[in-house]
Amino acid sequence: MEAETIELLDSTLRDGAQAEGITFSVEDKIKILLALDQLGIPCVEAGNPTSNPKDLEFFQRARALQLQQTKLVAFGSTRRRNCRVEEDSFVSDLLLAGTPAVSIFGKSWDFHVTDIIQTTLEENLAMIEDTIRYVKEQGRDVIFDAEHFFDGYKNNAEYAMASLEAAYKGGARVLALCDTNGGTMPFEIRAIVGAVCERYPDATIGIHCHDDCGMAVANSIEAVKAGARHVQGTFLGFGERCGNANLCTVLANLQIKMEMPCIPEGKLEELTQTARYLAEVANIALTEKEPYVGRSTFSHKGGMHIDGVNKNPKSFEHISPERVGNSRRFLMSEVAGRSYMVKKLQRYAPSLSKDSAETKRIMERMKELEHEGYQFEGAESSFEMIIRKEMGKYRPFFEIEDFKVIGEQAKRDGEFSAYALVKINVDGQVKTTAAEGDGPVNALDKALRQSLEVFFPAIGQIHLTDYKVRVLDTKATASKVRVLIETTDGREKWSTVGVSKDIIQASLIALVDSIEVKLLKDIESHIGLSKP
Amino acid sequence: MEAETIELLDSTLRDGAQAEGITFSVEDKIKILLALDQLGIPCVEAGNPTSNPKDLEFFQRARALQLQQTKLVAFGSTRRRNCRVEEDSFVSDLLLAGTPAVSIFGKSWDFHVTDIIQTTLEENLAMIEDTIRYVKEQGRDVIFDAEHFFDGYKNNAEYAMASLEAAYKGGARVLALCDTNGGTMPFEIRAIVGAVCERYPDATIGIHCHDDCGMAVANSIEAVKAGARHVQGTFLGFGERCGNANLCTVLANLQIKMEMPCIPEGKLEELTQTARYLAEVANIALTEKEPYVGRSTFSHKGGMHIDGVNKNPKSFEHISPERVGNSRRFLMSEVAGRSYMVKKLQRYAPSLSKDSAETKRIMERMKELEHEGYQFEGAESSFEMIIRKEMGKYRPFFEIEDFKVIGEQAKRDGEFSAYALVKINVDGQVKTTAAEGDGPVNALDKALRQSLEVFFPAIGQIHLTDYKVRVLDTKATASKVRVLIETTDGREKWSTVGVSKDIIQASLIALVDSIEVKLLKDIESHIGLSKP
Repeated sequence: MEAETIELLDSTLRDGAQAEGITFSVEDKIKILLALDQLGIPCVEAGNPTSNPKDLEFFQRARALQLQQTKLVAFGSTRRRNCRVEEDSFVSDLLLAGTPAVSIFGKSWDFHVTDIIQTTLEENLAMIEDTIRYVKEQGRDVIFDAEHFFDGYKNNAEYAMASLEAAYKGGARVLALCDTNGGTMPFEIRAIVGAVCERYPDATIGIHCHDDCGMAVANSIEAVKAGARHVQGTFLGFGERCGNANLCTVLANLQIKMEMPCIPEGKLEELTQTARYLAEVANIALTEKEPYVGRSTFSHKGGMHIDGVNKNPKSFEHISPERVGNSRRFLMSEVAGRSYMVKKLQRYAPSLSKDSAETKRIMERMKELEHEGYQFEGAESSFEMIIRKEMGKYRPFFEIEDFKVIGEQAKRDGEFSAYALVKINVDGQVKTTAAEGDGPVNALDKALRQSLEVFFPAIGQIHLTDYKVRVLDTKATASKVRVLIETTDGREKWSTVGVSKDIIQASLIALVDSIEVKLLKDIESHIGLSKP
Repeated sequence: MEAETIELLDSTLRDGAQAEGITFSVEDKIKILLALDQLGIPCVEAGNPTSNPKDLEFFQRARALQLQQTKLVAFGSTRRRNCRVEEDSFVSDLLLAGTPAVSIFGKSWDFHVTDIIQTTLEENLAMIEDTIRYVKEQGRDVIFDAEHFFDGYKNNAEYAMASLEAAYKGGARVLALCDTNGGTMPFEIRAIVGAVCERYPDATIGIHCHDDCGMAVANSIEAVKAGARHVQGTFLGFGERCGNANLCTVLANLQIKMEMPCIPEGKLEELTQTARYLAEVANIALTEKEPYVGRSTFSHKGGMHIDGVNKNPKSFEHISPERVGNSRRFLMSEVAGRSYMVKKLQRYAPSLSKDSAETKRIMERMKELEHEGYQFEGAESSFEMIIRKEMGKYRPFFEIEDFKVIGEQAKRDGEFSAYALVKINVDGQVKTTAAEGDGPVNALDKALRQSLEVFFPAIGQIHLTDYKVRVLDTKATASKVRVLIETTDGREKWSTVGVSKDIIQASLIALVDSIEVKLLKDIESHIGLSKP
């Protein structure tokens, strides 16, 4: 018998954007969409194209993408009360997004109908049925989000079921039951989802949970256990208030613990990397103890636990960390994560053995840098540069002899201006250049590249595609910062990192690495050199 | 019928101390114990008095405390294999702690017996029974922690049950079933706990869950549903790997959702304050979206949600925040609706009506600023400053006539240094100051405050407590940045925001706001002025 597949819908771009502290640019949204497509999440829900201009631009750009595995879903409400659906601009705007699927949310809790949107119970049912039928007739796959379904069911089960019936008659493929306020217990979810599944054996029943009681993941799992086959959440669990069901955790639980496939074969190993990438894009710190993908998730600190894991990992690990692309760490041991590190080193330098002096030296250096605040997730090129340096396979292309940045606001109410001056030395030839920029870091970047381009014309091909700053501690303006830079030469992309108490110095470290990576790449491809 | 009470056991001081990044001093441990006693947690588990000298000192000091509601529990293993319990120093040391109750953990998973502690299945059962009988005979209340009970039960149910039987015969009052590796699904917990409760109707069955699948809270709840009456966890959920069941969330769920009392009448309202205090002591940042007690837990950002909550809070809140001592917040954002904005405006300026020209002008200005990248959630003070400015109720305290920042690396391999020079004008008096700092922003902050302190000594009272940078788009180093600053004068805290293509200018905007807020606060408290 083939295992039953669960359809996942990620709402990071819609419900996730409701989280405090989260603001996505259009560029962020595109990156998230592509990462979820790459992982194989079948449905990705975004907002309403007309709710603001950024969403409109997002849908326009998304239409031009060649998504491989993901179907984009626009999200909007039923038509307004007392109007014809064909004439409702909310609904027609929603169709403008041009997505193959559309989520329509409607009210299932009688109290919300009468007290919040203030219409009659009959009109609300008509709003649901009309809207879904109309959107379906436009050739879209329709998901009905039954808002507050569980609160509604507990208050008036008959009416909550009637709202589903309206959606079903209208032609919705999925009836998604939402625990909008997040207050429902797992045993209630189980009973109510079970009752719905019994009533609609032909429909796909969905579940959408919030984490206000800390049980959104478990509630999603219990719903599947009761017959749901479509699960909504946000990849890192963020969303309004306490957030949504963490889809990354749900996915791993379903696929590993319940053997119900959610993403394509072989993709589960990309889970950790995807979660960390999304956290970077959203500019939030991934919780260290995040199930499956966190940094502490497979960390062992207690002596007895470390001893047990050394005897047999299953003694204190419910799964092997490699299955989700994570890795084990021993916190008290000298050999912390050693074998993993060696594995990683060997990817760049296959000649290195586990016990060689070079390996030990590199490991020491890595530890030092991590202690200083470096982090090489998402900065593989800086990691590679360190290996080169420690292996003696590095000779600098250039040296920065001197630099100065100046920022000023020359007169009262005047414009702010920033300049940088850089003096470089290339094999004894010295050149000094100055540039003006948008702020001191930009000025420094320009000056450095202008001066180097004279010696290395290939530098003209590269430009930075991303620049991120993370403040590492809370000593206010004297905090350490980590700067992450992403560079492209049009063919490849690479990322580098710098850490300092000074944002300009941190940026310069990452900039220099990014330029040297380009120069090394070119030399290697010209003379057919392999990696270090 | 009286509601059934659940006995909670907090293991923050024992399992919580296994978390990565957590190190408690003896002083910290005493503070945590007193806070839990104050809240009315019946059992607090600490370590083994001889595991390290800090624990020994802790138990000595704890014995001298007059705990009102909490019983202290020492924690240790069964006797070693093949020795007499009376002669085992582990066990005698444990009794030295002098606690009224003792947790003894033993193996329930046959694999752990044979492969990890490497003894016979029979000897392990004797180790459990002997140790518990002996500790009980010394007049202690005994809790048996059946380690890996669920993994054991799934592998060899008969043996797992035999381990409980040994503890029961030895005289344990509580048989606590541990999901040590955190890999068990809620439906498995339910079935297995149910089976145990049926077998031991007279014993108190306990549950101890870990969060490796993100379901520790739900698993604890399901266990109670199946008959468990003793629940273990750590107050903020931290512990080995992904942490333990978050006892704070479990407690609120049991007491509010299932009407099973855990702490004394009236204490639930102290939940938020206790959680925040413990986070302070543990020196960890409490997750913003923590169920019940987080800062975002009752925050509303979406316009429709804000509108609903204004009509009736239960529309988008599963409980009233006051029940757990938390409070509601409405966030300023592009997804917030107009009616909410007006309400918020009126809090600062009650004279404003919804349709007044001033309201419209302020709203326009807010929109412009949001479009530029401003975000006022978490920067309430900057929002207030805008209202003042737009209403003509603002006169600057000072003007910055000129400033210059210089960053340089003077010689090859030299140290990086940063200086700032600021010229301010206070009612015609001009002063120029310079300062060196860790990077240009820190230098500017210092110079500005040094020059202003001459005119406004109160500025000496304030310091920055947080500094955050968010890069807003991806034009690389020419990106816009948003800087968020948190300031305190020791009594109050406030947050301000600045946006610019230049990090220095963005920081300056937020710094100037933060200083003006302080000066306004002081004037208003002196002359009894109301808000604008």
